[in-house]
Amino acid sequence: MSENRDAVLSEMLVSLIRGKKYASVRDAMETMHAADIAAALGDCTKEQVPLLFRLLPKELAAETFSQMEEDKKELLIQSFSDSELKEVVDELYVDDAVDLVEEMPASVVKRILRQADPEKRKLINEILKYPEDSAGSIMTTEYVSLRPDMTVEDAIKRIRRTGVDKETINTCYVTDNNRKLIGIVTVRTLLLAEETDIMQDIMTEDVISALTTDDREKVSLDFVKYDFSAMPVVDEENRLVGIVTIDDVIDVLQEETTEDIEKMGAITPLEKPYLKTGALEIFKSRIPWLLILMFSATFTGGIISYYESALTGFPVLIASIPMLMATGGNCGSQASVTVIRGLSIGEIEFSDVLRVVWKEIRVALLCGITLALLNFLFLIFVSGQSVAVAAVICLTLLSTVTAAKAVGCVLPMVASKIGFDPAVMASPFITTIIDALSLIIYVNIAMSLL
Amino acid sequence: MSENRDAVLSEMLVSLIRGKKYASVRDAMETMHAADIAAALGDCTKEQVPLLFRLLPKELAAETFSQMEEDKKELLIQSFSDSELKEVVDELYVDDAVDLVEEMPASVVKRILRQADPEKRKLINEILKYPEDSAGSIMTTEYVSLRPDMTVEDAIKRIRRTGVDKETINTCYVTDNNRKLIGIVTVRTLLLAEETDIMQDIMTEDVISALTTDDREKVSLDFVKYDFSAMPVVDEENRLVGIVTIDDVIDVLQEETTEDIEKMGAITPLEKPYLKTGALEIFKSRIPWLLILMFSATFTGGIISYYESALTGFPVLIASIPMLMATGGNCGSQASVTVIRGLSIGEIEFSDVLRVVWKEIRVALLCGITLALLNFLFLIFVSGQSVAVAAVICLTLLSTVTAAKAVGCVLPMVASKIGFDPAVMASPFITTIIDALSLIIYVNIAMSLL
Repeated sequence: MSENRDAVLSEMLVSLIRGKKYASVRDAMETMHAADIAAALGDCTKEQVPLLFRLLPKELAAETFSQMEEDKKELLIQSFSDSELKEVVDELYVDDAVDLVEEMPASVVKRILRQADPEKRKLINEILKYPEDSAGSIMTTEYVSLRPDMTVEDAIKRIRRTGVDKETINTCYVTDNNRKLIGIVTVRTLLLAEETDIMQDIMTEDVISALTTDDREKVSLDFVKYDFSAMPVVDEENRLVGIVTIDDVIDVLQEETTEDIEKMGAITPLEKPYLKTGALEIFKSRIPWLLILMFSATFTGGIISYYESALTGFPVLIASIPMLMATGGNCGSQASVTVIRGLSIGEIEFSDVLRVVWKEIRVALLCGITLALLNFLFLIFVSGQSVAVAAVICLTLLSTVTAAKAVGCVLPMVASKIGFDPAVMASPFITTIIDALSLIIYVNIAMSLL
Repeated sequence: MSENRDAVLSEMLVSLIRGKKYASVRDAMETMHAADIAAALGDCTKEQVPLLFRLLPKELAAETFSQMEEDKKELLIQSFSDSELKEVVDELYVDDAVDLVEEMPASVVKRILRQADPEKRKLINEILKYPEDSAGSIMTTEYVSLRPDMTVEDAIKRIRRTGVDKETINTCYVTDNNRKLIGIVTVRTLLLAEETDIMQDIMTEDVISALTTDDREKVSLDFVKYDFSAMPVVDEENRLVGIVTIDDVIDVLQEETTEDIEKMGAITPLEKPYLKTGALEIFKSRIPWLLILMFSATFTGGIISYYESALTGFPVLIASIPMLMATGGNCGSQASVTVIRGLSIGEIEFSDVLRVVWKEIRVALLCGITLALLNFLFLIFVSGQSVAVAAVICLTLLSTVTAAKAVGCVLPMVASKIGFDPAVMASPFITTIIDALSLIIYVNIAMSLL
């Protein structure tokens, strides 16, 4: 759907450009949303992009620019004169300018900062100082602050003067003389209040705010919990320094989830979207894990060789190894995936560890008994194996399933407790542990029963 | 963090209740956010919950109620008199009332609908008619609609009269006589306009809206793309029937992602949070996949038995099976996880299939050559194997890695194209295909080289 839309729009723009109908291009783009223009520009050639961009009105140009893909941004900046660059940078919201500075190569960054006006340059540099993944690093410093003794009329005047360009004025922030945050007033409240009402009478005083150093993922989960659309960010002394807005929070949630999923798939998270990342970089993000896992699987193979004598008499025991290892791996990843997701959306905490283990053990017994029973019947009646051999395989199956579920749920929880990333502990890593474990169980059961 | 906060708050409330300090409980709760009160009530006993709840002021009570967990809601409803139930239901937003009706057992639903006033009952029933997972099913019918010929003064009067209770009045919707949506006006625009300005002069006309039947996931991705905080929902004739708000969109995004992750982990998605789901239900969501995968792994084992004669002369070939299968599985899931996530956040489309395959094949060659080379050296110099044996293992490794990456990226894309769920195609399923594939490659290379 959305792809068709972009393609249709960019085709129209390009054919207007070809016909040199510049006024119509401008009119057409003015009816479009910045995100659509950015996507349409993504489909245009190197030469068309700057041409189209220059036709955009100033504010829309900045909005479109901040939504474009990295390589197109760089291309545009290179085609800009210094004064054009200044115009775009001045128009950008501070948080978008910070994103830009973080994305671009050093030489381009220098040019950007040289063109930014001193006030904005200072703000950008301040935000860049906050640690990556902190609330400070995703906040914007553009918000409307009001004084407690202002009337509604004063407040509206102030918004009119300063707020038109602010990223969000749905909420205004009331601060005292020391810039300490003492309350919030929504635009809705202002609109419905009397002109002579005073801020401190109509403001909400119990404000939940984030510290600049809070983890951005924690702040995002608070947004979800409280249904916020913006959240004030304060320093250690409760002085207001910025706000985090919902659009950035959604991006954080999407990014963090993508990282979790990548880690569960044994990939070091990529910096850029997949289609924009070169094969060499993708290779680098995958090969370390493959190496670790390959050598740990070699270790599993070593166990097989070591116990070979115990197994070679019974070919069916060797033929069952893939089934045992696969089932163990699947059971382990079912448990670990559930727990990792629960941890990252805040549904499960470390204090739940006993409840989780107890639940998983019951689930494991239910699964293990079902699988073992069906397999037993299959081995006896379809494969025609002896009861002893079938018993070895099915007892191993039951033990493996139980061990796998237990390891699969405990490991991510312990990891998160000691400050490791639970997602790294996911399927492939756990699978390797379980493979080794199930083989040892297998051989021991085989040796004692046969 | 948030857990501690909830525990601290609920402890305080409970000890105030014990001391029969009801006025203070009420005061304390009035300073708290609904989400915190709901969480605190989650930690209270059956007897304390209704007691605390009755102390809440009406509006806060409804907000708290809609944020409570299912079992606590049911408990409360059972302790309510009919008039108490009516009070809460009347105060709920329509979309929250719909959620409630969807969650509760049939007998409770009957009681709820009986107590709702006829107007609200009609709205609830209308929304219930939209298909699950459609935009209609997550919208609310509470919004402020304005007429094109209204002045700002009229609009503010209208909002004051009807809008105070509306879920979001940050955006108002301008409709014509046939209820067709013709524009939007933000509260910010109203606040900054002159009192005599007319809606049709200050409204934005290019409105992106969703159809009631649109998929809720697509609507959510549009929210992210355009940075919306609310989006109008219209019927086939462009008549405004409701709005979707950002808080519901975030819930949709979280839920859809959790479902994707569960499917990748070979679990049928759970209806309720993990800790609230019984062991039997969890068992049911996991066992079908385990059975399918167990029997397909038995098939892999069959391949081993079938070719046993080709392998038994060389024990190291058997000992290498786990390494080959594990590496193939890991390579496949790296590719599939990346592609599945890309598909679900709209970063990858089916039309990218050739680019993706070409990228994966290059990555596969880089990974395969690295892994094979290191393994070759290891087999020759550490394990002391012959060059021929090492060559068999390493050629198989290279072929398996390439096949795994190709299958891993193509399968989810094809699945999404033909309307299957790509996430179901993820790791475990692909792993089984790759296991079988790599064994066949292995045996054939072994037979031709040794």
